[in-house]
Amino acid sequence: MTIWKGRFRKPLDPEALRFSTSLDVDRRLYREDIQGSIAHAAMLQRAGILRPREGSAIARGLRGILRDLDGGTLALSSSGKGRFVAEDVHMAIEAILIRRIGRVGGKLHTARSRNDQVALDERLYLRSAGKAILGQLRAYQRSLLRIAGRSASVLMPGYTHLQRAQPVLLAHHLLAYVAMADRDRKRFSDCLTRALVSPLGAGALAGTSFPIQRRAVAKSLKLKGIVENSIDAVSDRDALMEFVAACALTMMHLSRLAEELILWSSEEWRFLTIGEGFTTGSSIMPQKRNPDIAELVRGKTGRVYGDLMALLTVMKGLPLSYNRDLQEDKEPLFDAAGTTEQSLRIMGRMLGTVRFDAKRFREELRGGALLATELADYLVRKGVPFREAHAAAGSVVAACERKKISLADLPLSEYRKRSRAFGADLYRLLDPEVSVRMKRSAGSTAPREVAAAIRRWKQRL
Amino acid sequence: MTIWKGRFRKPLDPEALRFSTSLDVDRRLYREDIQGSIAHAAMLQRAGILRPREGSAIARGLRGILRDLDGGTLALSSSGKGRFVAEDVHMAIEAILIRRIGRVGGKLHTARSRNDQVALDERLYLRSAGKAILGQLRAYQRSLLRIAGRSASVLMPGYTHLQRAQPVLLAHHLLAYVAMADRDRKRFSDCLTRALVSPLGAGALAGTSFPIQRRAVAKSLKLKGIVENSIDAVSDRDALMEFVAACALTMMHLSRLAEELILWSSEEWRFLTIGEGFTTGSSIMPQKRNPDIAELVRGKTGRVYGDLMALLTVMKGLPLSYNRDLQEDKEPLFDAAGTTEQSLRIMGRMLGTVRFDAKRFREELRGGALLATELADYLVRKGVPFREAHAAAGSVVAACERKKISLADLPLSEYRKRSRAFGADLYRLLDPEVSVRMKRSAGSTAPREVAAAIRRWKQRL
Amino acid sequence: MTIWKGRFRKPLDPEALRFSTSLDVDRRLYREDIQGSIAHAAMLQRAGILRPREGSAIARGLRGILRDLDGGTLALSSSGKGRFVAEDVHMAIEAILIRRIGRVGGKLHTARSRNDQVALDERLYLRSAGKAILGQLRAYQRSLLRIAGRSASVLMPGYTHLQRAQPVLLAHHLLAYVAMADRDRKRFSDCLTRALVSPLGAGALAGTSFPIQRRAVAKSLKLKGIVENSIDAVSDRDALMEFVAACALTMMHLSRLAEELILWSSEEWRFLTIGEGFTTGSSIMPQKRNPDIAELVRGKTGRVYGDLMALLTVMKGLPLSYNRDLQEDKEPLFDAAGTTEQSLRIMGRMLGTVRFDAKRFREELRGGALLATELADYLVRKGVPFREAHAAAGSVVAACERKKISLADLPLSEYRKRSRAFGADLYRLLDPEVSVRMKRSAGSTAPREVAAAIRRWKQRL
Amino acid sequence: MTIWKGRFRKPLDPEALRFSTSLDVDRRLYREDIQGSIAHAAMLQRAGILRPREGSAIARGLRGILRDLDGGTLALSSSGKGRFVAEDVHMAIEAILIRRIGRVGGKLHTARSRNDQVALDERLYLRSAGKAILGQLRAYQRSLLRIAGRSASVLMPGYTHLQRAQPVLLAHHLLAYVAMADRDRKRFSDCLTRALVSPLGAGALAGTSFPIQRRAVAKSLKLKGIVENSIDAVSDRDALMEFVAACALTMMHLSRLAEELILWSSEEWRFLTIGEGFTTGSSIMPQKRNPDIAELVRGKTGRVYGDLMALLTVMKGLPLSYNRDLQEDKEPLFDAAGTTEQSLRIMGRMLGTVRFDAKRFREELRGGALLATELADYLVRKGVPFREAHAAAGSVVAACERKKISLADLPLSEYRKRSRAFGADLYRLLDPEVSVRMKRSAGSTAPREVAAAIRRWKQRL
Repeated sequence: MTIWKGRFRKPLDPEALRFSTSLDVDRRLYREDIQGSIAHAAMLQRAGILRPREGSAIARGLRGILRDLDGGTLALSSSGKGRFVAEDVHMAIEAILIRRIGRVGGKLHTARSRNDQVALDERLYLRSAGKAILGQLRAYQRSLLRIAGRSASVLMPGYTHLQRAQPVLLAHHLLAYVAMADRDRKRFSDCLTRALVSPLGAGALAGTSFPIQRRAVAKSLKLKGIVENSIDAVSDRDALMEFVAACALTMMHLSRLAEELILWSSEEWRFLTIGEGFTTGSSIMPQKRNPDIAELVRGKTGRVYGDLMALLTVMKGLPLSYNRDLQEDKEPLFDAAGTTEQSLRIMGRMLGTVRFDAKRFREELRGGALLATELADYLVRKGVPFREAHAAAGSVVAACERKKISLADLPLSEYRKRSRAFGADLYRLLDPEVSVRMKRSAGSTAPREVAAAIRRWKQRL
Repeated sequence: MTIWKGRFRKPLDPEALRFSTSLDVDRRLYREDIQGSIAHAAMLQRAGILRPREGSAIARGLRGILRDLDGGTLALSSSGKGRFVAEDVHMAIEAILIRRIGRVGGKLHTARSRNDQVALDERLYLRSAGKAILGQLRAYQRSLLRIAGRSASVLMPGYTHLQRAQPVLLAHHLLAYVAMADRDRKRFSDCLTRALVSPLGAGALAGTSFPIQRRAVAKSLKLKGIVENSIDAVSDRDALMEFVAACALTMMHLSRLAEELILWSSEEWRFLTIGEGFTTGSSIMPQKRNPDIAELVRGKTGRVYGDLMALLTVMKGLPLSYNRDLQEDKEPLFDAAGTTEQSLRIMGRMLGTVRFDAKRFREELRGGALLATELADYLVRKGVPFREAHAAAGSVVAACERKKISLADLPLSEYRKRSRAFGADLYRLLDPEVSVRMKRSAGSTAPREVAAAIRRWKQRL
Repeated sequence: MTIWKGRFRKPLDPEALRFSTSLDVDRRLYREDIQGSIAHAAMLQRAGILRPREGSAIARGLRGILRDLDGGTLALSSSGKGRFVAEDVHMAIEAILIRRIGRVGGKLHTARSRNDQVALDERLYLRSAGKAILGQLRAYQRSLLRIAGRSASVLMPGYTHLQRAQPVLLAHHLLAYVAMADRDRKRFSDCLTRALVSPLGAGALAGTSFPIQRRAVAKSLKLKGIVENSIDAVSDRDALMEFVAACALTMMHLSRLAEELILWSSEEWRFLTIGEGFTTGSSIMPQKRNPDIAELVRGKTGRVYGDLMALLTVMKGLPLSYNRDLQEDKEPLFDAAGTTEQSLRIMGRMLGTVRFDAKRFREELRGGALLATELADYLVRKGVPFREAHAAAGSVVAACERKKISLADLPLSEYRKRSRAFGADLYRLLDPEVSVRMKRSAGSTAPREVAAAIRRWKQRL
Repeated sequence: MTIWKGRFRKPLDPEALRFSTSLDVDRRLYREDIQGSIAHAAMLQRAGILRPREGSAIARGLRGILRDLDGGTLALSSSGKGRFVAEDVHMAIEAILIRRIGRVGGKLHTARSRNDQVALDERLYLRSAGKAILGQLRAYQRSLLRIAGRSASVLMPGYTHLQRAQPVLLAHHLLAYVAMADRDRKRFSDCLTRALVSPLGAGALAGTSFPIQRRAVAKSLKLKGIVENSIDAVSDRDALMEFVAACALTMMHLSRLAEELILWSSEEWRFLTIGEGFTTGSSIMPQKRNPDIAELVRGKTGRVYGDLMALLTVMKGLPLSYNRDLQEDKEPLFDAAGTTEQSLRIMGRMLGTVRFDAKRFREELRGGALLATELADYLVRKGVPFREAHAAAGSVVAACERKKISLADLPLSEYRKRSRAFGADLYRLLDPEVSVRMKRSAGSTAPREVAAAIRRWKQRL
């Protein structure tokens, strides 16, 4: 299958072939590869480089191969009996083409190199992988939004440092994840905006002396333009790294939600139950109900981080233009894109099975330590400088803790010992419902603000 | 200096304070912190939360602190005699303010938490760091463009696999780096577009019950809007990671150019000489002239990759909202931003001292093996399928190699043994100048294309 | 300060000097550097390369510099008025030496290059940093062991998937961390065994023509031998990476304990209280008591991972022998070593302030779902295949859950519906104390096993 | 195939099963899994927990499955028609066993959990993977040593900063890589020493109430002992990370050699030719002969770094004991181990085809700038302080460079202008052969030292 046999007297060492073949990995690109070849051949024909008869033979041949690969009657593999062996997906398809349509198949590679060909295939892959992830991000946002919409009045303790901080609406908490996913979508969109230009026509690195029409090929592939500089076109993998970095951030967001699902479904928290279809039992402990799917999503964050590091390492210090090291770009890309898409999908579905325990939330908001900030703000409204108000409220909390009573049970006299500005109206504040309703700032957990946010998101999604 | 003394009976353990203070790191944010506080105080005053007298005392106090810090008459440090000790830059500045203007200083923190405050400071930092990097990217592009413009007719061997592949214009090669830097600029711009919104007013996590005006503060800080969700506002560090990922890609690009500068200034290549001001000698070998600056830039790529990995690791699996782990976000950010800015700057300056050796380039293009692709294309134009043309040209090269002669010295009869389509006009092609001039594809190394590209870049930069 | 001035007409560009100086980082090596120089000079003298008078002048000069640096009367800095400016710690100290003792100081660098000098300094640093970390690891183990010893009879729920699994002894849980730290110690020891050999005498890369005595220098520095190959000696940074990888694993272990301290001190778990000296309050919420130190330790794991990645990236693909990229090895090393040592130290101290809530543990073990495995094992002992026993026990748990009763409250008839092998003696098992006492396997949570383990560790530590 | 069906009313959601199954990855562990199960069953029988008849039925059944899997008549897959579907390799094998030998197969899992089972499988995998890598490391060392032995008298320019520094023996340069590989071997050995202990018998986390014999099982599996603490046994993945870190360092070393092979086979260096079986041609440029295998080895370094980062990320902050995140440990481990083994193997083989060009080496050593250090040392031997000698020699080099002559062509008078200590005997030194022969330090490039090193290595390998 080696194509440079003209000059070499010895074929590639069999072990070297095994070591260097990428077919088992890059065969995933066969659709993109054939799509690109069809567009290239059509242009060669239009430009008079191929005769009409040649052009249509090639196009027909390629479409046939695509059909057979899609249908499973043809398989690409680097090994195995009866299967087609080649060093990569590009050579495999070209060789099949020549076997099927004869010598004319050898004209397909005119004015093209594998260097620009693979760069194109990867960008076409980014388009479809990006589209899939964008779709899953939206579905995941909708899942979150659905719960938020359904639980508009449910209060829960908000956390900082994993310590209860202030009462917030559950919906408000969930909308934070909707906002994260929105940034993720924008990052993927920005990445695709930059990525979706055609490197085809850059040749090996210098361009070509055939009168090809690069922009026309780009247009026929529905790409936004061309990579201007031919050396850059075959050396550059920015789009892949940017894409995988976006995957890493998305996974990071999912890992945070996964962590919360794990915590909240623990015996200690009991804020929610994950549907049985998304939890598993133990091989030994019959009572277990483990949040495996959430744990796996959290764990899979590691592999996507690793994919990013792999790509960055590969590219570091490489001189221009193409180097074979670049072959190592595909597995991390495929892995990161696939993992991210699947993780979003499974999280979206799992969220649909989660039941929150509103009663438990309510109970957990009693006692009122979460409302200490309200006390401080109360004093501030009476003119006490914030720092002093904060100290007085802190002292109140400490007193209640010592006496093991709630804030509402501390008599006014005790309050006034800490600050003369306290009055009987303070007790009105010691209610989580009041706390959230009193919030007045834009984007706060005030029910009015949260309801408006839900409306906005519904329109956008 | 602890501010939660109201509730605690014991102060922070001295070692715990040393371990947890961030002042030595985050004091770099003092400008951003004071700028944010001035805007916050002005809004508090407009909203009637501070009286005019209070508002102006605070503003005046803050401006005085800024002046003294800028001027070096005041210093922030977590240790040292006579210096001000505090756990972070926010508390340090607030404490100085109170010391200077009295109790009223304690009102500054009304309707604000350190959680939203630090998130604001970091975004303001991103703005100035981003602006600096964008400026350096442009300067670096201009340096490259200047050389490209000056060397419009210089040919060099283009490389793939670090093997000579085809003749290209030196300018074309350099413009590949200009294009990389352009994508870098777009990435930083996109990142800043997303980053430059105000989290202030999110409070600790839930918003505030004071009638603050979040959008007005954002506007007075020249930010594009607000972070909508208050929980998201204090939990999110996306912008930092996106920024550092952009730094990592920029450094990766610089590491590739650095590698080429190192190779090309080696005894073996001798394509260029770096100015003496940017090379160093040896402590032991008197003849050495080492490309240390390029090596350092290449090496510093590692630290920025490490910064990215650090940030991603910190964020993985953190439940909402603020966790103290987030304190660890600053050093990687500062380090990555600073390293990237300085590396761009030094590369831009060093490029200005590089002298290319056009004569050496010319000599190295002789012999013609780089023109084998032209032979194959020649045959294709005569109707030979590309694969067969490639084999014939390969065989020609092998023959010349065996005979140790150049392509031009092989007689026509030998050529025609390999393909009957060869004619005497083939020798015309065996000239690097002809090779690049014959290129016809957009973005190729054809002088016409390269000149047009230089014009386009000149306009843009 | 440049030392290669013999050949260069221009000094290093001031910006290039600023960019390339490492003095602000590597001045931390001044002790190691002087120690190595003293040993080197002593050998030069013994070998007759220096005259006795020269040797003692140099030794005296070096000791004086060490004293002044230790005492703070001399400072090394790359900038600042009145301070000594140099490109690195080696040149700085040599220059000071020459300034102090005159021309003879210039003889110190005979038969030595900065390449082998810095490699030696780093290995000496590894020795002291390694010793410090090993000491902190032991102190941390002792802290854990002290708690384990004190709480020998305290039971707690053991977790898998963060779901309660089976009762275990708190001491058993803590001893798991002691075991992790023990592996950490062995890794550091193994690393040091490999690291503590002397590269000195390798010169720039080729060795030297002076009759030096490499092994004698190594011995006088209490190193185990020499790096055999001189090219390897100046190119190799394995020991650093191995050391930082060991730091990364240690931090990973600490991050797991930190996570548990955070969870267990949450309102939901309430298994323990961290001493006030190691928790902090909030700038806004007066009731908060945040486990900041644990959060910071968890967060700092990220920076050490980043340090490892930085080092690995720097080294990737570097040709032999020394390259200036290697200068970037110091900051990650110092940062990882310092962070690990401090994190161990603060965790050890913090653990001393933790109070576990034995009563809460006891309450949380009631209800018995954690004992379902005992039911399955009971059936197995009666001859039921494990898989069937597991199913029967699972069905029992599900029934109790539906009825919201504990295992002990389910009547025998209901048990026997699930398996005829159940008898009245099953109720005896439904006691966490019995569960742990019944464990018979080596290393299990059986009190006998745990007590033996505590004894073993006490002897070892 | 779910085994916790006793308690759950709903099966795992089909998508969740697809997302969570690890069978396609962990089926690689089938040998280890069956080996462990056979040892476990034998012990259960010896301990009287299984009857002899049961024990032998299980052993026979397991051996049959092993045979069928080895022979390819049985296949494990998470999907596909007619194939066996299960969530992981452990459940798959157990299910096949029960299908084959009936109910008694359900007794195999007595006194065992998947948590300790998988931990054992992984350690057994480490043993065989480690053995394979250790073997390849030795073969690779032997390859290097063979070349070193054959080229004992070949001189080449030694490099620092990729600038020619001093003449060294090619063998000496190659032995540096032998030394690196030796450290790699020690790291793998140390890792295995720690890793090869048995976690079996730890159960889910707490041990078991069956009278099992953990140490006997360990012994029968030829392991060195047991993991003492049962919670640690199921939570710990240190050995994997240590192993992958050792892989990362090994790949880093290979990447350095790969870089040198790429550089040295370039048109510019021409120090060596890689055998045709290990180079490839171009799809478009007929003259190319690309060092693809070396490039791929260099590139694959990235994936192993990524594997390490993935594992570290997965483990960060996980509470004890087992969490499903740990499932993500296998792919990085398998990938790193496989990549490292194959890369070593292919490098070892490729080195066997490399031909060095001794003539080219000789030519490149002419001119003598590499001998400037000798001039400096010459002066030192005449009593000139090193720093002054260095300056004088530098000035000599600069003069020769200006005049474009070699050191040998500069008249003595010019030398003496730079230092009065120069005499006519200096010219004797201006010979690379003399330079290396004059080296006297241990481990230097002196032929005597290098020959001794070769002898030592031959004995060791």
